[in-house]
Amino acid sequence: MALLGAIEGGGTKFVVAVCDEDMKIVDRQSIPTEDGQKTMDAVIAYFDQYEDIKAIGIAMFGPIDINPESRTYGRVLDTPKRGWSGYDVLGRMKAWRDLPYFWTTDVNGAAWAEYKTGAIEPDHSLVYLTVGTGVGAGIINRGELLSGYGHPEAGHLMMQKHPKDTYKGHCPFHQDRCLEGLAAGPAMAERWGKTAKDLSDDDIAWEIEADYLAQAAVDFTVTLRPDKIIFGGGVPHREILLPLVRKAFSEKFSNYLATPDLDDYIVPVSTGDNAGILGCFYLAQSKLEKIS
Amino acid sequence: MALLGAIEGGGTKFVVAVCDEDMKIVDRQSIPTEDGQKTMDAVIAYFDQYEDIKAIGIAMFGPIDINPESRTYGRVLDTPKRGWSGYDVLGRMKAWRDLPYFWTTDVNGAAWAEYKTGAIEPDHSLVYLTVGTGVGAGIINRGELLSGYGHPEAGHLMMQKHPKDTYKGHCPFHQDRCLEGLAAGPAMAERWGKTAKDLSDDDIAWEIEADYLAQAAVDFTVTLRPDKIIFGGGVPHREILLPLVRKAFSEKFSNYLATPDLDDYIVPVSTGDNAGILGCFYLAQSKLEKIS
Repeated sequence: MALLGAIEGGGTKFVVAVCDEDMKIVDRQSIPTEDGQKTMDAVIAYFDQYEDIKAIGIAMFGPIDINPESRTYGRVLDTPKRGWSGYDVLGRMKAWRDLPYFWTTDVNGAAWAEYKTGAIEPDHSLVYLTVGTGVGAGIINRGELLSGYGHPEAGHLMMQKHPKDTYKGHCPFHQDRCLEGLAAGPAMAERWGKTAKDLSDDDIAWEIEADYLAQAAVDFTVTLRPDKIIFGGGVPHREILLPLVRKAFSEKFSNYLATPDLDDYIVPVSTGDNAGILGCFYLAQSKLEKIS
Repeated sequence: MALLGAIEGGGTKFVVAVCDEDMKIVDRQSIPTEDGQKTMDAVIAYFDQYEDIKAIGIAMFGPIDINPESRTYGRVLDTPKRGWSGYDVLGRMKAWRDLPYFWTTDVNGAAWAEYKTGAIEPDHSLVYLTVGTGVGAGIINRGELLSGYGHPEAGHLMMQKHPKDTYKGHCPFHQDRCLEGLAAGPAMAERWGKTAKDLSDDDIAWEIEADYLAQAAVDFTVTLRPDKIIFGGGVPHREILLPLVRKAFSEKFSNYLATPDLDDYIVPVSTGDNAGILGCFYLAQSKLEKIS
């Protein structure tokens, strides 16, 4: 039986899985993230069980080098995560078996899953923004993952500080000047002294969080003019959040340009916790289609 | 002799021109911008002189509808410019002669000129930002003008206010919250009581201007990862400005991601005052190539 493989590489765990030709999951397993060497040993031991894998999609935490012209293509770039800076993930997999691999970021994988499961028409475009331990974005424009000199790192969009927010920020590079520094889970936890899930619905924390996410939505709108902005990750699990983002977006944007109706434009992720794995399968499939 | 036509539609003047197959300008003429009807009468009278025009590139001031799926495709959208809201520019041209027309924004035209004259490799990407009466951007990603639900309107990126800037802003939609409201020519003139060209090199105006342009450059970098950000329009004519933008970019970005060397990354426009017309010719040519 022909199989496709998935490697969803996160900062705390790697999820590995195989599916059949109908995208039905045959098996999945979670591996705690250690350093590059040990984690990839376990990943390879997992796939060693399967002879008939035709292609694997790899969706990794960033920053990673996805530029095929670069001499560090396939590697993890500088990261505070121990034992990962410079680690050659793609090279390791190719040395194991010379299969077709689709190599991209975790958010690109999740964006691709949303795209392939019908979030937008094939020739339209979407932004997938994840807000959790970090903030990251995957962008699909007319059927292609957008990238240039590297993959998007739109968690670091510059922000206007909310007038009631005195927090010093959590980004080691941009402090309180960027989205991730102000709106990621750890920023919320440090600012309010409790995690997002312990904040009540009427806490001003949500108004402030929505303000920053709405600024990002405006920036995406004026730059990319997407058909949909999809919010994933842990923080947007709170149901109160996206209605507040729509409200703040509407106030900030002042109806400057036509957008889809906001209820269809600023939306939660639909593929849920399987987005990462599903995205990897679809990416593996698209790699096979490009070859054949 | 086969000719290509160009219509560069600006708020104060329309430039119309024809070139031969080697992109050599045969003739050009400037028409003062009146309302849609009168201006397009003059445009058509100009092209009536030429029998052998094979295609025309039209690069218009925005906002315009460039979405072929839309029922207002080819029209000018709501604009404060008298006699232009809803005007069907493309329909008027097609009624005149049923030629291939490339219909896009003025900044997209200028971006295309930079691309075709070698600013970047064909599979790379660039942002062209014009800073003059307004602020606008054209984005080219791997050989295509980026658009989604409509064309980019990146003059309206949300901004952090510079701590020394108390100006109330000039954008009728976003006041002092967006790039155009803070950094366009009219904002500079109103804030400082004199136009950009009357401000001395050591005026703090330039530090503030550079701050906003650098924020935009950071936003483009983290979202699009372009190979080049090109500054055009009247304001960046001042030679002191781009070195200040590079400095502010460097401070804000904190070397978070790899970029090309800043001297090759944040650059002035190279096609100069002919960018708009040249872009139209190249767009007309690309339209012909797609058909044949």
